[in-house]
Amino acid sequence: MAEFRSDIEIARAASKKPIGEIGERLGIPGEHLLPYGHDKAKVSADFIDSLADRPDGKLILVTAISPTPAGEGKTTTTVGLGDGLSAIGKKTAICLREPSLGPNFGIKGGAAGGGMAQVVPMEDINLHFTGDFHAITTANNLLAALIDNHIHWGNELDIDVRRVTWRRVVDMNDRALRQIVSSLGGPANGYPRESGFDITVASEVMAILCLARDLRDLQRRLGNIVIGARRDKTPVFARDLKAEGPMTVLLRDAMMPNLVQTLEHTPAFVHGGPFANIAHGCNSVVATRAALKLADYVVTEAGFGADLGAEKFFDIKCRKAGLSPAAAVVVATVRALKMNGGVAKDQLGTENIGALQAGCANLGRHVENVQSFGVPVVVAINHFATDSLNEIEAIRNYCDALGVEAILCRHWAQGSDGTEELAHKVAEIAESGQAQFSPLYPDSMPLLEKIETVARSIYRAGEVTVPKPVLDDLARFEEQGYGKLPVCMAKTQYSFSADPKQLGAPTGHTLPVREVRLSAGAGFVVAVCGDIMTMPGLPRSPSSERIGLSENGDIEGLF
Amino acid sequence: MAEFRSDIEIARAASKKPIGEIGERLGIPGEHLLPYGHDKAKVSADFIDSLADRPDGKLILVTAISPTPAGEGKTTTTVGLGDGLSAIGKKTAICLREPSLGPNFGIKGGAAGGGMAQVVPMEDINLHFTGDFHAITTANNLLAALIDNHIHWGNELDIDVRRVTWRRVVDMNDRALRQIVSSLGGPANGYPRESGFDITVASEVMAILCLARDLRDLQRRLGNIVIGARRDKTPVFARDLKAEGPMTVLLRDAMMPNLVQTLEHTPAFVHGGPFANIAHGCNSVVATRAALKLADYVVTEAGFGADLGAEKFFDIKCRKAGLSPAAAVVVATVRALKMNGGVAKDQLGTENIGALQAGCANLGRHVENVQSFGVPVVVAINHFATDSLNEIEAIRNYCDALGVEAILCRHWAQGSDGTEELAHKVAEIAESGQAQFSPLYPDSMPLLEKIETVARSIYRAGEVTVPKPVLDDLARFEEQGYGKLPVCMAKTQYSFSADPKQLGAPTGHTLPVREVRLSAGAGFVVAVCGDIMTMPGLPRSPSSERIGLSENGDIEGLF
Repeated sequence: MAEFRSDIEIARAASKKPIGEIGERLGIPGEHLLPYGHDKAKVSADFIDSLADRPDGKLILVTAISPTPAGEGKTTTTVGLGDGLSAIGKKTAICLREPSLGPNFGIKGGAAGGGMAQVVPMEDINLHFTGDFHAITTANNLLAALIDNHIHWGNELDIDVRRVTWRRVVDMNDRALRQIVSSLGGPANGYPRESGFDITVASEVMAILCLARDLRDLQRRLGNIVIGARRDKTPVFARDLKAEGPMTVLLRDAMMPNLVQTLEHTPAFVHGGPFANIAHGCNSVVATRAALKLADYVVTEAGFGADLGAEKFFDIKCRKAGLSPAAAVVVATVRALKMNGGVAKDQLGTENIGALQAGCANLGRHVENVQSFGVPVVVAINHFATDSLNEIEAIRNYCDALGVEAILCRHWAQGSDGTEELAHKVAEIAESGQAQFSPLYPDSMPLLEKIETVARSIYRAGEVTVPKPVLDDLARFEEQGYGKLPVCMAKTQYSFSADPKQLGAPTGHTLPVREVRLSAGAGFVVAVCGDIMTMPGLPRSPSSERIGLSENGDIEGLF
Repeated sequence: MAEFRSDIEIARAASKKPIGEIGERLGIPGEHLLPYGHDKAKVSADFIDSLADRPDGKLILVTAISPTPAGEGKTTTTVGLGDGLSAIGKKTAICLREPSLGPNFGIKGGAAGGGMAQVVPMEDINLHFTGDFHAITTANNLLAALIDNHIHWGNELDIDVRRVTWRRVVDMNDRALRQIVSSLGGPANGYPRESGFDITVASEVMAILCLARDLRDLQRRLGNIVIGARRDKTPVFARDLKAEGPMTVLLRDAMMPNLVQTLEHTPAFVHGGPFANIAHGCNSVVATRAALKLADYVVTEAGFGADLGAEKFFDIKCRKAGLSPAAAVVVATVRALKMNGGVAKDQLGTENIGALQAGCANLGRHVENVQSFGVPVVVAINHFATDSLNEIEAIRNYCDALGVEAILCRHWAQGSDGTEELAHKVAEIAESGQAQFSPLYPDSMPLLEKIETVARSIYRAGEVTVPKPVLDDLARFEEQGYGKLPVCMAKTQYSFSADPKQLGAPTGHTLPVREVRLSAGAGFVVAVCGDIMTMPGLPRSPSSERIGLSENGDIEGLF
């Protein structure tokens, strides 16, 4: 581009269409589109219910190589591909996650794509948006209040105060709340106990909202949440506190998918945003299913690299929602591949074919993994201005040898003009019907074997270590009837191994399973492999210090 | 009525007009009305700014006698009078507070009027509405996170961790959070300290949002918040943490007033909801000022009885916003007057003229107090089915002797048909121009004298006791330049005295000022007289247990 414009400048200059027109593109009648301002809307639950008998469009997953500080542009590519498919005449919708509000005030950044491949209104999407996360926060914390209230008034359920596992949440980076003692100050304030807060995206309520099919399923799943245990370790459920009803009422609007648009007016559902470590990292099932009924092509993404994001998308979301992806795009950049090949961040501007070729092992492993689910793959090389022609050629050669096509994409600079080739290729694969999706393991496999299967097949670990107390927990979960659930792996996103420093494509490493947690409402067992942060902190100089309103009332410093 | 219908049944059966039509009634162009669904909207800040040169309509305050468990119907009468004024041909708008979400799950009840005098959509207004309270919660808690983050990273401002007064908030009744120890778990989680949570309506951010004139004023006030002190007791401000910018960004949408409608389609601004004890208990200045520019009559209410609500409305809101009320309505009911006269709640169905006459002293005192601000008064007798004609006659006679008109109103059962007489009377007084509003005390009066003036003139206390440490605090506030602020009295709403059991019209009692707090951003000094609860708890059997979704997806049990 002749002149550099920041994402926010591009987003502000966008000529948005009224959201009613975006809804019309998908055939959503005005009375079923609940506007939030002129450029955001929710799609009514009644309308979505009415679509049940329609055929589904083609589902395309955008995933990526292992993330690095260089950035891969997964969301940007999802938007770019969506616009590309629209541009070649396909009726397309995009499905993305909603960004978390809290982290905006820590480190500069938003999550609505970038350059000419963005969803708008960017500021709203990155701030309160339509209030979904606030509703989730409230529902989560109502359950917490009901737990302490029950104990305060006599504890008829005999909840062991040392074994309450349900934590409160805020959508804020606030390390001071990670570990607290609550109910201090005497009898009027309840029984003191250790507790703490997570960030809202880590709430099981978030995962539940994103996996529930409708309000009834939501209410059932909320009731199934295990909030803690009695002294004999038998589980106490949210339904024992009659919490699922009011929580569902609080989430009624939040369950309706949000509709916005890309800079090129492709309809985009932005709905739900569970963590990609202790949860499954995908947008809501309700949004994806609605989009599939309304569009011929639905482009969606999953969190982190394909080892976490795609695996959970396939083994948790697709398995549970009965989805069958037609193709997958694995996003790579020259810069991130060079980092995976050992180059330091400040050296990324220099051509380095050797490091790039070494880093390609990471790409190859992810491609192979995704293919192992029966889903055909295209590689998208997300172009940066510093990329050399030799480097791009090296990736192409590597992919040729793998038997997979690598297509250079310039959507950041050019929008849909930069993804036309990718769009044609994706459409060709999707129409060919060559996808034969199946999850990695059957429901009937024991929980420990499921963990080992992911570790061996996807991470290529040599060994999985599981301490005795974790084995006991897994045995108890199976006794209690949770043996058929899929596993949700919580592992560093930076490496196939549990060590964030092992870049590239390590093999034979040891995966330590430190802890397992039952998310009985969401419907999975989390295997925690390494340190997982569920409440971030703010940095020494938080970006909040540079955020404010300008003279003309514009937001400054947020992005 | 032939058939009893609950408030929620009436609200659900309402034939709402599209919110665009309600906006049109006030001349708000479509592009400046930001819809939230089809029946709620925010009015854009730009449009409100454009109204500055228009003349103001007449401002009518609805206040009440001292509240009792029998209920007075202040909000219901505000709605009824608004509809009555509309019905007699006046261009009218209503201004109400937004209800708090948290208490809905404790004790059954909402706050959007009742019977045929309601604002709708009632469920939305009582739940998340347009997200204002969530934005306030988030802004409040961002400041809290920035405080602990600053201390964690070296505490350059030398904040005394024992003297941090800023607390976190949630919109939830959660006694377990009243008193906590945070930042436990080692160095990564910060410096442990005692802290706690209030309910969101108690946040100074709420008071600030409701008193700020525009976004610029909001940002300035947020910067002025005192979050705590250094060891030498010098104040530390939110602006020292550069918190006012991001807080303003979080509150940008929340600052825009919300527009809804009554059952009879009178436009209603429902915006802001500060506590009426530690804050001033009125809807936002932005909403009231916008309404005055757009309508010829604006009917608003203030929290609790006139001793708290009207006094603060006059001495804080009107003083600071330059508002000049044209008339006030003091709401009374036969039942509540009988309770003020000593009748127990289960005896209220029985005629009791003696008790009623005794209770009228409470009404008389409130009427006299309101008149002392130069505002002419009408008494509205909010009719209940159990009222006897003799009882109503007794109130009329009492008011005749006071020289004030008492008008029977049946808006609960009849809507505007039941307030026609009241509407005509209010319009007559307002048009007469007899109001000569002035606040109770001048800005220049010392803080202690302001407290004593309210205590003597409004509460009729014989003595005001102020312990030495409180006197020292007041002296320090004056030294620091806060001497010109008005005082915000935090006292029980049930009595003119600080003892909730002294009903009627006690005199000569002692008002104990236990504590004073500086709300430097809101712009008042709170005088705490007695126990003030800033975080409610849930009852033994919370109403949440009966809340859920019915088979057809309706909310059950919420109201």
